[in-house]
Amino acid sequence: MSAFEKDIKIVADKTDQYLKSYFSQQKQNNELFEAMGYGLFAGGKKIRSYLTVAAFDLFGIKEETAIIVAAAIECVHSYSLIHDDLPSMDNDDFRRGKESTHKKFGESTAILAGNSLLTIAFEILTSNHLDLDKEVKSDLVFALASCSGHLGIAGGQFLDLSFEGKAQDEKTIIHMQNKKTGELMGFCTEAAAIVAKKNNDREELKKIGLDIGLLFQIADDLLDVYGDQNKLGKPSKQDDKKGKATLIATFGLDKTNVLANELHDKIKQSLEKYGTKANRLLSSAEFILKRDH
Amino acid sequence: MSAFEKDIKIVADKTDQYLKSYFSQQKQNNELFEAMGYGLFAGGKKIRSYLTVAAFDLFGIKEETAIIVAAAIECVHSYSLIHDDLPSMDNDDFRRGKESTHKKFGESTAILAGNSLLTIAFEILTSNHLDLDKEVKSDLVFALASCSGHLGIAGGQFLDLSFEGKAQDEKTIIHMQNKKTGELMGFCTEAAAIVAKKNNDREELKKIGLDIGLLFQIADDLLDVYGDQNKLGKPSKQDDKKGKATLIATFGLDKTNVLANELHDKIKQSLEKYGTKANRLLSSAEFILKRDH
Repeated sequence: MSAFEKDIKIVADKTDQYLKSYFSQQKQNNELFEAMGYGLFAGGKKIRSYLTVAAFDLFGIKEETAIIVAAAIECVHSYSLIHDDLPSMDNDDFRRGKESTHKKFGESTAILAGNSLLTIAFEILTSNHLDLDKEVKSDLVFALASCSGHLGIAGGQFLDLSFEGKAQDEKTIIHMQNKKTGELMGFCTEAAAIVAKKNNDREELKKIGLDIGLLFQIADDLLDVYGDQNKLGKPSKQDDKKGKATLIATFGLDKTNVLANELHDKIKQSLEKYGTKANRLLSSAEFILKRDH
Repeated sequence: MSAFEKDIKIVADKTDQYLKSYFSQQKQNNELFEAMGYGLFAGGKKIRSYLTVAAFDLFGIKEETAIIVAAAIECVHSYSLIHDDLPSMDNDDFRRGKESTHKKFGESTAILAGNSLLTIAFEILTSNHLDLDKEVKSDLVFALASCSGHLGIAGGQFLDLSFEGKAQDEKTIIHMQNKKTGELMGFCTEAAAIVAKKNNDREELKKIGLDIGLLFQIADDLLDVYGDQNKLGKPSKQDDKKGKATLIATFGLDKTNVLANELHDKIKQSLEKYGTKANRLLSSAEFILKRDH
C-alpha cells in the first residue's frame, strides 16, 4: 500500500468513525436501521471523503470539519448506490463482493434505507456536531440538495437507465455522467469554498470536482472493460452486457484515454495557484487516473 | 363548500402556484420531471399546507413565508405517497382516482421522482425565495430531515409494512402512525415556532401537530372502513384486505371514536392561550374529525 493509499484509508476510517458515532446516538435497532448501516459501512475507498478533506486543505480548514461534511456526502453516495442496485434500476445482486442491500433486506427496506440515508445527510449538515455558522450550513444544504435530486444524482440515473441499449454522442454521455457522478464530486470540492466563505471561488472549485468526477467515471468504465474481477469485488464487463451508454462504447479506448489525460492536465493547471496545499487533491486525480480497482 | 373548505382551497392553490413557478424555473422537460409534477400536482386538499399556514397565524407571520415552507412540506409528503404506492410497498395502482406514479411512469422513474421531490424540499427551504435568516433555514432543515427519514416517514412506513397481518397493541400502532404521518404534521406546526424564533414553544407546537396528525390518521382509518369509495377517489376497505395494523382493527369503532374526541379536546386546550389567532388551526382539527372524504 502506497503512502497515498494509506492516507485515503486513514480518512475513510475517520469518516466511518464519525458516522458510527452518529448512528449509535440514534438508538435504533430495527432492520431498517441495520440496512442503512449495511449499505453505508460496506467498505470501499470513500474517495468522496478524501476529495472533501483534500479540498478543505486548499483553504487550511481543519480536518475535523471536513470529515463531518464528508460523512454527509457518503450518506448521499450510499443512498444512490443502494437505489442504483434495485431490481427496477440496474438490478445488481452484488456490491463490493457482498449481496446488495435489497438482496439482503428486501426491496422495500432497501428503498427506505436509501431514503433515510439521503435525509440523514441534511440532518448531519445542520446538526450541532458541525461547528460552522448556520449561514454556511444553509448554503451547504442548498448545494448538496441541488446535486442529489433530479438535477444531479437522481436525474443522472434516470438518463443512464433511459440510454440503455441506445447509442449516444459524447456530449450527451458526459452530461449524464456529470449529473450521475460529477455533481456530487463537484460538491466535495465546492463545499470547501462554501465553508471558507470564498464565494468567488465556488464555481471554479465545483468545476475541479466535476472534472475529477468525469475522470473517475472514465476510469470506472475502463475498469469495467479491462479490470480484474477479483480486485474489483464485482463482475466486470457489466456495462456492455446491460447496453450501458459509456464513453468507451462510443469512442473506443484510445480517444477515451486521450480525454482522461486532458482532464488530468486541466485539473493540475487549475490547482497550480494553491501550491503545496493542493498536494492531496493532485494525488487524488493521479490515483483515479491510474487505479486498478 | 363551507367557508372553511374555501379557505383550504385558497391555501392549496397558493401552494401549487408557488410550486409551479419553482418548477418552471428548473427548465427541465424529461419524463422524470414530468413524473415529479404528476405526483406533486395530483390534487388533494393539501391539509399540511393549511396546517402550516394556520400555525404561522399563531405568531402573526406573513402567509407568503408560510406558503414556501408549506411547499417544501408538500414535496416531502408527495415523495412519501409515491414511494408508499410502489409494488414492493403498498402496491397501490391508484391514488386520488388516477393511476399511481409507478403505474404511469414505471417503477424506476417513480422511485427517482420520489427521491427528487424529497431533495427539492431541502432546496426550497434554503433557497433565496424564502425570505428568512439562514440560521432559521438551517433549523428548519434539521427539523424536516429528522421527520422525513428513518426516525419519521421512512421509519413509519417500514413499521407499517412489517406489521401487516400481525396484531399490535395500541401503543405500538400509535408509535408507528406518529412516525408515518404525525412527525411531518408536527413539523408543520413546529416550523411556525422555528420561524418566529420562539424556541421555548417548539416542543409544544410540535406536540399539537403530532396530535392533529394522529387525529388525521384515525379519521383516515375510519374513512377506509366506513367511507364512500366515490368521495374518496380510491377503493375503501383496503386496510383490512392488506391486514394493515390500524387502531380500529385493534380496538373497534367505539374506543377509536373516544380517542379521537379526546385528542380533539386536548388540541383545543393547547390552543386556548392563542385566542382568535388559533381559529384556523382549531377549524382544521374540527374539519379532520368530521371529514367524509
